Amino acid sequence: MDTYIDRHIERFRGELESFLEIPSVSTDPDRAGDVRRCASWLADRLRDGGANEATLVPTAGHPIVLAQYVASGDAPTVLVYGHYDVQPSSPDDLWTSPPFRPTVRGERIYARGAADDKGQVHMHLKALEAVLATTGRMPLNVTLLIEGEEEVGSPSLAKFVAENRRRLACDAVLISDTTMLAPEAPAITIGTRGLVYAQVTVRGPRRDLHSGHYGGAVSNPANALGRIIGALLDAGGRITVPRFYDRVRAVTRREAESLRRMPPAEASVQAQTGVPAAGGEAGIDALERIWFRPALDVNGMQSGFTGEGAKTIIPAEATAKISMRLVADQDPDDVAQAFTDHVRGLAPAGVTVEAHVLQRARPWSAEPDHPTFRVAEAALAGAFGTAPVYTRVGGSIPIVPQLAEALGVPILLLGFNLPDGNIHAPDESLHLGVYQRGIRALAHVYRGLAAALYRSR
Amino acid sequence: MDTYIDRHIERFRGELESFLEIPSVSTDPDRAGDVRRCASWLADRLRDGGANEATLVPTAGHPIVLAQYVASGDAPTVLVYGHYDVQPSSPDDLWTSPPFRPTVRGERIYARGAADDKGQVHMHLKALEAVLATTGRMPLNVTLLIEGEEEVGSPSLAKFVAENRRRLACDAVLISDTTMLAPEAPAITIGTRGLVYAQVTVRGPRRDLHSGHYGGAVSNPANALGRIIGALLDAGGRITVPRFYDRVRAVTRREAESLRRMPPAEASVQAQTGVPAAGGEAGIDALERIWFRPALDVNGMQSGFTGEGAKTIIPAEATAKISMRLVADQDPDDVAQAFTDHVRGLAPAGVTVEAHVLQRARPWSAEPDHPTFRVAEAALAGAFGTAPVYTRVGGSIPIVPQLAEALGVPILLLGFNLPDGNIHAPDESLHLGVYQRGIRALAHVYRGLAAALYRSR
Repeated sequence: MDTYIDRHIERFRGELESFLEIPSVSTDPDRAGDVRRCASWLADRLRDGGANEATLVPTAGHPIVLAQYVASGDAPTVLVYGHYDVQPSSPDDLWTSPPFRPTVRGERIYARGAADDKGQVHMHLKALEAVLATTGRMPLNVTLLIEGEEEVGSPSLAKFVAENRRRLACDAVLISDTTMLAPEAPAITIGTRGLVYAQVTVRGPRRDLHSGHYGGAVSNPANALGRIIGALLDAGGRITVPRFYDRVRAVTRREAESLRRMPPAEASVQAQTGVPAAGGEAGIDALERIWFRPALDVNGMQSGFTGEGAKTIIPAEATAKISMRLVADQDPDDVAQAFTDHVRGLAPAGVTVEAHVLQRARPWSAEPDHPTFRVAEAALAGAFGTAPVYTRVGGSIPIVPQLAEALGVPILLLGFNLPDGNIHAPDESLHLGVYQRGIRALAHVYRGLAAALYRSR
Repeated sequence: MDTYIDRHIERFRGELESFLEIPSVSTDPDRAGDVRRCASWLADRLRDGGANEATLVPTAGHPIVLAQYVASGDAPTVLVYGHYDVQPSSPDDLWTSPPFRPTVRGERIYARGAADDKGQVHMHLKALEAVLATTGRMPLNVTLLIEGEEEVGSPSLAKFVAENRRRLACDAVLISDTTMLAPEAPAITIGTRGLVYAQVTVRGPRRDLHSGHYGGAVSNPANALGRIIGALLDAGGRITVPRFYDRVRAVTRREAESLRRMPPAEASVQAQTGVPAAGGEAGIDALERIWFRPALDVNGMQSGFTGEGAKTIIPAEATAKISMRLVADQDPDDVAQAFTDHVRGLAPAGVTVEAHVLQRARPWSAEPDHPTFRVAEAALAGAFGTAPVYTRVGGSIPIVPQLAEALGVPILLLGFNLPDGNIHAPDESLHLGVYQRGIRALAHVYRGLAAALYRSR
């Protein structure tokens, strides 16, 4: 199998480049056609690669690609989840090469979606091709559920999962949409944070006003938004939304142990970002803040005149996109309501405030006790030469808690992004050595899971 | 004279439209050619209208248009100041008709610059034409100084004034760049606020980060900017910059009297803007806040992702444009320094803050005791049917304190913008009845000043 993969790696890369060239930006309504084209491309490649079936399932938004590789007899089933949509590429001028013209520099390929998540989805396709080509048959059933709305909060997915439990029934779930520690240090992720992502709009005068003629006489929506944002975190970095911490629990002994086994995070955060790791709650280690503590971040804001030079206006409105990352056992619906109420309460007189929740996801956490984790450990150790470590991520993968709840089976998060892979940022990249070793590891995971899942029945 | 004006008003309007069609946006480097073209157009029209000389004076930025109408003998001299540059038109989609396609609707002409200040400059040209055409000679010398950098803070003007005191020597200054109360209610302005306009930039990580992977571990520049903005005003609407109010003085008895003579401002501010007049300092009447109290306003801000939907990032930087309006006896240089120090001090750990002052202007205040004010009162009363009131403006006209200091002569601010003229905003307009009556009034001002200034020598 490894030989097959190594022999065909150039063709795989070429195919990956075609995948990355399609600007499947799900947040941008103007890109809806590209998103659909990307779904069709993916279904075609799945059929080319030996899937017994690959269809586009329509949703209210972008289609889901659903594919099946069928094994003979009473084989166990693995459900693979991924997404073919990508984040917006803006600001494009900060990319070294254009975001949708995949470009190899050094050991990496640079493009929007290279790591998140097209590159990792493509590794599964090629691993399955290698298994089929070298053994002549599927050792287990594989259902692939590749959605096109992950970057807009997966609005159609929960409904689809709820209505298709039988179609999605499986013995384990496999997802590659997370990060490893270094090109030779694989990781299995056992925790993700939840999310509430809101848009807050402050409105004042019915149109922009001259800041001289009215300054001091009317409430300024941009000042008000600054005041609101400033009040959302206290001086110690704690979120001021009432009852926010009620369901945030202290780390368990096992969790604390997993933190101790990791390299110091402050230094690596500093190296990756260029800033002192000074965010979040005072007195708590950086990795614990990312893995086990909630966070509140302004993701963007806009008001009034932002061009060159000076325009003297009181803006008619000001808007901010504010996300909260949640940890066990916070409930996104409760947090969304408390946040909305709190923000409205912070509005000064003379302006109105609206808060719309755009996305929400539950936090998720697992214990790596099921035999499937042993299969993944062995496959990753074989391909990368090092045993994987168990990690958590500060990000959110909405499907994980949804599938955990709906299907009640173990979920394996085997991720191949690197910490400096710049996902959601300019110059996103995938390490090509990791791409090749990852395909090998996944091929072994598919073969190993067949045996382990038979045994654990 | 009035008959001449009425007979030629259609031609005047057509010429005004040509003036307004030139997008002389001084803040936009891409419009530098249009600004220059506008200056040439204006000099040509001055020569057409009988100016003995009209030249473009180069500066480090946009040219000054300098023109002279020369009277015979030992006549007094009036210096007229105005500006031919305009504010940016953005957001263009909020204009009912395009900002640089002058359009008449009802009694008004709509275009960027219609009121601020091209329309008012043009009234002077036509008043001078009427005086010359109907009397056959200039009753006094008139120097016109029409600059192209008012909307960028007049960076070249102070130097020009200082270096050309002899050329600008005069017995009185006449400026039309202010607002009247209503189409039949003329005003003479005797106070303007000063200005410090700064750009504040907060920088954090070297590039945008995934808000899941790093949220809670690094300081977020957008959160930090919100915190800074929120801290610049206290809960009572007072500016928190240290020593800010040290040189703000209480209103005099005469000033308090002028406030009492004005209609209630809260209601008119509310009608004009659509918001309760809730800005600024608690417990002080709205008009007093605009005329006699300082203000601090965010004019614009930008950070991170501001497109459709949700992008989960911690932005690398956040920026805001913040203006402060100053009143007697505040010094812009002192305020600029105190603001810059204060803002830097408000930065949380993990981000850096830069503050650049883009514009500064002194506050100005006059007492209407000189005989020139009587001339203006009579001319305005004659043309509009109502005696003018003495008002102040919350805006800044940098040239006024500069000329007051450099020339030591009375300054008459005779303005023809209306409170709902939307200057610095979409759908800027000039009332065409005011345009016609204003030209008449100015023609009488020119004739009356000749006699008054002879007498007061």
